[in-house]
Amino acid sequence: MNMSMGLQLHTRKGDEAVHPKICVPLMGKNREALQDEWKQLRKKTVDLLEWRVDYFEKNRDVDLIIDIAEEIHRETTRPLLFTKRSEAEGGQAVSLNEDEVVQLYEAVIASAAVHGIDIELRQSEKNTQHLIEQARNQEIDVILSHHNFTETPPAQRLEEKIREAVDLGADVAKIAVMPQSKTDVLTLLQVTEKMSRTIPIPLISMAMGVNGMISRLAGGVFGSALTFASGAQASAPGQIPVADVEQVLRILNRNM
Amino acid sequence: MNMSMGLQLHTRKGDEAVHPKICVPLMGKNREALQDEWKQLRKKTVDLLEWRVDYFEKNRDVDLIIDIAEEIHRETTRPLLFTKRSEAEGGQAVSLNEDEVVQLYEAVIASAAVHGIDIELRQSEKNTQHLIEQARNQEIDVILSHHNFTETPPAQRLEEKIREAVDLGADVAKIAVMPQSKTDVLTLLQVTEKMSRTIPIPLISMAMGVNGMISRLAGGVFGSALTFASGAQASAPGQIPVADVEQVLRILNRNM
Repeated sequence: MNMSMGLQLHTRKGDEAVHPKICVPLMGKNREALQDEWKQLRKKTVDLLEWRVDYFEKNRDVDLIIDIAEEIHRETTRPLLFTKRSEAEGGQAVSLNEDEVVQLYEAVIASAAVHGIDIELRQSEKNTQHLIEQARNQEIDVILSHHNFTETPPAQRLEEKIREAVDLGADVAKIAVMPQSKTDVLTLLQVTEKMSRTIPIPLISMAMGVNGMISRLAGGVFGSALTFASGAQASAPGQIPVADVEQVLRILNRNM
Repeated sequence: MNMSMGLQLHTRKGDEAVHPKICVPLMGKNREALQDEWKQLRKKTVDLLEWRVDYFEKNRDVDLIIDIAEEIHRETTRPLLFTKRSEAEGGQAVSLNEDEVVQLYEAVIASAAVHGIDIELRQSEKNTQHLIEQARNQEIDVILSHHNFTETPPAQRLEEKIREAVDLGADVAKIAVMPQSKTDVLTLLQVTEKMSRTIPIPLISMAMGVNGMISRLAGGVFGSALTFASGAQASAPGQIPVADVEQVLRILNRNM
């Protein structure tokens, strides 16, 4: 596999740098706020959008959610990643229980209104396998993700998480960590460098916060397939405005 | 020491990122070519200039060299680093023997026309000690440098080279390596990160070539006090045009 189906992310080839795609999160709490967000992005270089549905208020209105997802893709013509981030991994608190979240994902997958979904590795294996199967039938990418908002686990632990994602059948693996030092940032980059050469699927990685900011710009050099950049607002600490990210990546590409 | 005397480079404080200075090499073979080079830099954000005198044709005309050094500083109002790079470390072949190079450095130091000199660690300890003493009397910074244009030595070897520079009395230590993989780039950044926190003087480091390019932009985050950017031409592989470097550093600083 050289490119993931729905999100069109590239698997790394050997030691080469990856031209990372830029993804901007949409975090509006209602339709109008979401519309404002994506309209502001029209003139920006954005490769895909992530709808962070944990910020959306009417999270029980499945029909509305599918309608908005279709509108986002129709209006932006960008692949859409659908994510209900858990509170434990940096998301907004929502009233949905785990089964309800799975049902929401099922409905969104069935609608084929999105191109990728993000499932956290903390999700039960049974639910994950079920959703992967549903998504595969619709040619929707599944990102299996792990976020640590307090620290950077040792390299070996991060590698295990990435292998877990691969073994479960992810189309894309994602890890995000909070560095407590610049050394932690280098640990994240080393893991990215090694694992992106090793696994058969695209890898997304980042070190969060101000300490880790450089990883959002330099990650592609070391094999990260995607970088998240902020639009109207940042969905995680250390995100850089999309225009800045685009400019730095353009300079890197021009000189390589 | 928080700032070096002549070149005004900053020693790193703890884990903090350094705002690296930008240095552009001047490589003209005669006065006119040099003038063209620095005139082109007038509107660029350049913190200091390095005169790579190994590219200069009349390298036996000490009076002319001092006169030009004074002109460069007068016309550019930037600190001037004076460097005769050896062929073994990536410089141009010149007809001067080692004693003649030392005499040239002595004369340039005595003139006080420059703010820093670069001496390679391969230089004899006797000559190095002598030049350091002369430079100290004139408040001129001495960079003790090590370049490897073929590979990236193991981290421990690089750390030894940096310690050697500190022990010999350098005001600034510099290491430049050629990465053969992205892993080598991370080795260089790790050494930079660790040693810049450890030594009491500023450290300059870079991984050269296309593979290492990212280190010229991200080096400051991990403690490198200076990055070399190309003006009219590049003095080493992987150097990025000064306007591009300036733009990326501006974006990094704005978001930190």
